Amino acid sequence: MKLANRSMVTIDDLSNGEVLALFSLADEMSISMKEQHGLCGGKIMASLFFEPSTRTRLSFEAAMHRLGGSVITASDVGATSLAKGESIADMARVVGSYADIIVIRHPWEGAAKVVADYAGIPVINAGDGGHQHPTQTLCDLFTLKKERGTIKGLKIALWGDLKYGRTTHSLIFALAKFGADILFCPSPGLEVPEHVIDKLITEYGGEVEHYKDSEVEEETLFPLDAVYTTPSSPHQLAMMPDISLHVELKSGVDALYVTRPQKERFTTGEEGKDLKKEYPVVDKKLLRDKAFRQTLVMHPLPRVDELAYDVDADKRSMYFKQAARGVPVRMALLALLLGVKDVKIPEVESPSPIDYHIYNRVSGLRCPNSRCVSIQETETKYLKPEFKIVNYEPLTLRCVYCEHGIEPKFVASADWHEGKLDTKKYHSADSHWVHTIKPENLIVFNTEEEARAHGFKPSHFTGGHR
Amino acid sequence: MKLANRSMVTIDDLSNGEVLALFSLADEMSISMKEQHGLCGGKIMASLFFEPSTRTRLSFEAAMHRLGGSVITASDVGATSLAKGESIADMARVVGSYADIIVIRHPWEGAAKVVADYAGIPVINAGDGGHQHPTQTLCDLFTLKKERGTIKGLKIALWGDLKYGRTTHSLIFALAKFGADILFCPSPGLEVPEHVIDKLITEYGGEVEHYKDSEVEEETLFPLDAVYTTPSSPHQLAMMPDISLHVELKSGVDALYVTRPQKERFTTGEEGKDLKKEYPVVDKKLLRDKAFRQTLVMHPLPRVDELAYDVDADKRSMYFKQAARGVPVRMALLALLLGVKDVKIPEVESPSPIDYHIYNRVSGLRCPNSRCVSIQETETKYLKPEFKIVNYEPLTLRCVYCEHGIEPKFVASADWHEGKLDTKKYHSADSHWVHTIKPENLIVFNTEEEARAHGFKPSHFTGGHR
Amino acid sequence: MKLANRSMVTIDDLSNGEVLALFSLADEMSISMKEQHGLCGGKIMASLFFEPSTRTRLSFEAAMHRLGGSVITASDVGATSLAKGESIADMARVVGSYADIIVIRHPWEGAAKVVADYAGIPVINAGDGGHQHPTQTLCDLFTLKKERGTIKGLKIALWGDLKYGRTTHSLIFALAKFGADILFCPSPGLEVPEHVIDKLITEYGGEVEHYKDSEVEEETLFPLDAVYTTPSSPHQLAMMPDISLHVELKSGVDALYVTRPQKERFTTGEEGKDLKKEYPVVDKKLLRDKAFRQTLVMHPLPRVDELAYDVDADKRSMYFKQAARGVPVRMALLALLLGVKDVKIPEVESPSPIDYHIYNRVSGLRCPNSRCVSIQETETKYLKPEFKIVNYEPLTLRCVYCEHGIEPKFVASADWHEGKLDTKKYHSADSHWVHTIKPENLIVFNTEEEARAHGFKPSHFTGGHR
Repeated sequence: MKLANRSMVTIDDLSNGEVLALFSLADEMSISMKEQHGLCGGKIMASLFFEPSTRTRLSFEAAMHRLGGSVITASDVGATSLAKGESIADMARVVGSYADIIVIRHPWEGAAKVVADYAGIPVINAGDGGHQHPTQTLCDLFTLKKERGTIKGLKIALWGDLKYGRTTHSLIFALAKFGADILFCPSPGLEVPEHVIDKLITEYGGEVEHYKDSEVEEETLFPLDAVYTTPSSPHQLAMMPDISLHVELKSGVDALYVTRPQKERFTTGEEGKDLKKEYPVVDKKLLRDKAFRQTLVMHPLPRVDELAYDVDADKRSMYFKQAARGVPVRMALLALLLGVKDVKIPEVESPSPIDYHIYNRVSGLRCPNSRCVSIQETETKYLKPEFKIVNYEPLTLRCVYCEHGIEPKFVASADWHEGKLDTKKYHSADSHWVHTIKPENLIVFNTEEEARAHGFKPSHFTGGHR
Repeated sequence: MKLANRSMVTIDDLSNGEVLALFSLADEMSISMKEQHGLCGGKIMASLFFEPSTRTRLSFEAAMHRLGGSVITASDVGATSLAKGESIADMARVVGSYADIIVIRHPWEGAAKVVADYAGIPVINAGDGGHQHPTQTLCDLFTLKKERGTIKGLKIALWGDLKYGRTTHSLIFALAKFGADILFCPSPGLEVPEHVIDKLITEYGGEVEHYKDSEVEEETLFPLDAVYTTPSSPHQLAMMPDISLHVELKSGVDALYVTRPQKERFTTGEEGKDLKKEYPVVDKKLLRDKAFRQTLVMHPLPRVDELAYDVDADKRSMYFKQAARGVPVRMALLALLLGVKDVKIPEVESPSPIDYHIYNRVSGLRCPNSRCVSIQETETKYLKPEFKIVNYEPLTLRCVYCEHGIEPKFVASADWHEGKLDTKKYHSADSHWVHTIKPENLIVFNTEEEARAHGFKPSHFTGGHR
Repeated sequence: MKLANRSMVTIDDLSNGEVLALFSLADEMSISMKEQHGLCGGKIMASLFFEPSTRTRLSFEAAMHRLGGSVITASDVGATSLAKGESIADMARVVGSYADIIVIRHPWEGAAKVVADYAGIPVINAGDGGHQHPTQTLCDLFTLKKERGTIKGLKIALWGDLKYGRTTHSLIFALAKFGADILFCPSPGLEVPEHVIDKLITEYGGEVEHYKDSEVEEETLFPLDAVYTTPSSPHQLAMMPDISLHVELKSGVDALYVTRPQKERFTTGEEGKDLKKEYPVVDKKLLRDKAFRQTLVMHPLPRVDELAYDVDADKRSMYFKQAARGVPVRMALLALLLGVKDVKIPEVESPSPIDYHIYNRVSGLRCPNSRCVSIQETETKYLKPEFKIVNYEPLTLRCVYCEHGIEPKFVASADWHEGKLDTKKYHSADSHWVHTIKPENLIVFNTEEEARAHGFKPSHFTGGHR
């Protein structure tokens, strides 16, 4: 399977084997930087940043220049034609006719997928709202792989803002794919979102154990909230009640992945929070604990107060290495997607993508995520809501753009009532009907009003909602 | 005649033959993109955008990179030294000493001419206020030429905001130069400005027929306002009363050129307009009409609501092709002006530029256009108002910068009163004196106060103004 | 001594010989621009501009492109991760791992030094607040050298805003280093800051003579405020009372260096000033004076009103040449610091840097300059205040970042009180103790409160402050 002409919107767009092949190429390139300068002569990368960024943009642009390619940049929202009300699809099509590859950062979740759908050239997601930031994840994995030799079986503690940190969401899925165990250590109120947890369980088959405050209050090194364990190691950690969490932690953590509070995405209520008090800080003192003796300290940067400068000189500190390694990793990715390099993909186990049924009927259902690209005024002119049916109990749809979940309350069938208006009925989504209606005929509604507006009448199975 | 070292400020800066030669080169380059990469090695293009733009800037920059050249960019008004009160001339001279060619977009009309006057290197106008945007016009013409084989004799309907759309103004003159007939279909209140109409008549010798609402009310396909017919086809369209407009239209339109409302240039009164209601929309339904069977649907993009997405997949839709073709067209232009390519200019008919008399006396006359570069505070320190005398009945002067027209009320002579103060008199501009005074001696005034301030007394011929 | 891998933060970072060697290379490069295009292939310059600039940024970027190198740019404060609260040191380390050389402009004084300290690659200061702008100075010196053959012994009048013009401060030191005499002609209220005068006297050994209004009122050509004379020419100018200033001026000035008012750095009180009235203007009329017959008119640009356009065509006008010469000068600097070119350094006299004692104790002392990088919230997390002890009478410390001076009021010793708390005393900084305490033991305080907070008691020598 070739990587040329493909896009990278989420970390799932590369199989485990492809990721490892990319890492080999990145290694090779970092050793012989100068020799790579002829690879992309005459190629153009469009660098479209609709959100502030120095690090990621400059890293991509440096990577393209190291490959000898050219860069065209739009780095300021105000200075773009989007201000004139243009849609993302139009922008993608036009820039797709100028350049050979697009790197896009955008505040709307799912925006990178839209660009990839319309550009006609490979697209790399450099961050779409709180959704994903897959190349940051590649840099993180690359560092783990280089420092530990493997990712499988590592015990990684994720630290800080696990709610809005898109780097964290991409990383969680990637770690799961590679079989690492994850300890969730969020700042209070900034826990991992439900839709991420749901995907972890349904797609990566591991188990998530939540902790009550009381369980971890004493002697705990950090504010543990939940543990995700991969299928191959279910009993290793939290699943065995006779092995206490504290003992487990004391056996050592492979990496502490620290993130800053993503204040720019906080809701009005959250903005007032006194983070200085509640946000856990990683410093020299914390790292003195035996459990951290071999722990890699990682951070996607920029940092604010959550990671003290007194750790910088420590040999366990990986964050500046992570940043530096971004260049060869992105060089490898650009070279592969542009098709100027080819690699042999090693045969390794990789979770197969699940072939969910697609739901795209016009039934009033729209993504509930206010940051989702699919519901923005400029985009609804051409984008139709589209969901994957990822669960039937409870009935759960996942937006194909931002991957947020939605649990509709009512179902109906598009088949049964053909010509027979009196059979045009809707039922509660938690009734048996959800299993009876064929997926290709399923119609869902959020409210009884919606159902009625589409000409349906309540059945005996509309539950407490009737 | 060589193109090297010349500038392109308005579409008139290239003869018809030069435009066609440029199109041949663009064609050649688009076929062998990769081979062009060595052409501009070591050359630098300065990309100076003092107004928001993604499309045009990235298109120029991509073109320069495809030629193997380098680009230096200033794309944000706030981030420039203009904020420190610098004049355009100073900026032009300085950047002219850094780069080999300048591409400039500026909100002031005539700014590109000033840059061209002072930079000392070739300059390309990438849009100066509502004045011109000649490379967009080249892309439009290139598409017409490629799709229809010729431009002469085509019937082009211009649609939407014909008042503020600078792409439209450049296009109108270009179409006239090449002998196409133009149908004006403006949104109410956004008609073609008078100075454009005047130039059409005086310089391209065609005729403009205006329609009253009543004439076109019935059966009309679109809101026709006026028709411009080229000299070679005066009777073809509106000039023959026995050929009704509707019949004519039904014989087919070659292209519908749609533009968005240029809201950023609307005056305070215009901003309140409910454009959603009045602005004509091109969609699948409209295009079903027989008259549009072969019609190319064109748009300079970005679009807002005036062009429906349901037209995108239609084979008549040209707008994404127009955008894509911008790269080879701009490559050809850059290569020619930089002198790295030479072409044979075909001998084709082209309207000769008229050698108008220049008026640049200090007589209080200043351009009435508030967006004109010549009256801006930073520019009056070195720019002297300058006009072409384009008509004597009524006496009409055209600003050499923004090309707006002005009809002064009074005239005097610089010759007659030498030493004889009692002969220092001013006369009404619609008296016979306007023809009696030699152009090189003409002095004009807007008001009697101005005339008196310059020491002139009223003559018997100051008309009703006395 | 090689220039490769060094940084240029202040003009003092290059010896006189190194400056002259750089000028030779710049001369060589300007003659054969095209041949330089292969020098920096594969090298990346990061262009980080945290303040508005067109000229300097584009000049550097053009220089790098002329050398065949690549550029990554962050030119807008708002579009950077600094907005997320990142420190300059973190930014420097990260970008230092992407690029081969950094060019930085920043509003905080001393910021370029911090970048140079942390980046791990060569750094060029392109302006740090009101502190320095050393490459502008190189362009200025280069023009003087080319036009006059030498800098030593030239008489240079500095004109306008000598308080906030960072280009002026760099230039003053550079002229002093090369042995030129300087006439200070400030707009009232915009005189050369004390810390600059102090450095001139203590480090370059010349003398500064101040003039009272009454002395220069009559017959003066311009608003002379002070004269700095270099050691080799103390009697030439102001030091000999029998040679009147006016006679001296009439013997001719080699260059008039004009600067605009740096309004963006004015304090609230200064903003209200009516500069139009008070700010001296250089125009054709002024230059008619005999004293200016051979005078070079220089300006770092952009100009506002202080330099009239009627001078532009005059052959004495150097300002557009200065700007144009910025490209070869910066090319030479980039090539030398990147180590792709080497030059023979001529053996010329150059003032040796003084090896001041460093003061970096935690004693509450912080730089009093509100624009200094060392006191900014994001930077105090890792930066410790650090000063050079540049004088003992009065005791004067100079911030190593912004070079502002501070005269602490009290001193104590870190040695004498070891174990003997009753000897832990502080003394007045103007007492003999300042000479008695060994520099390595010196502790300084701004207030008695600070001294007491650190556990010290007043001695008999706390002067009137007790």
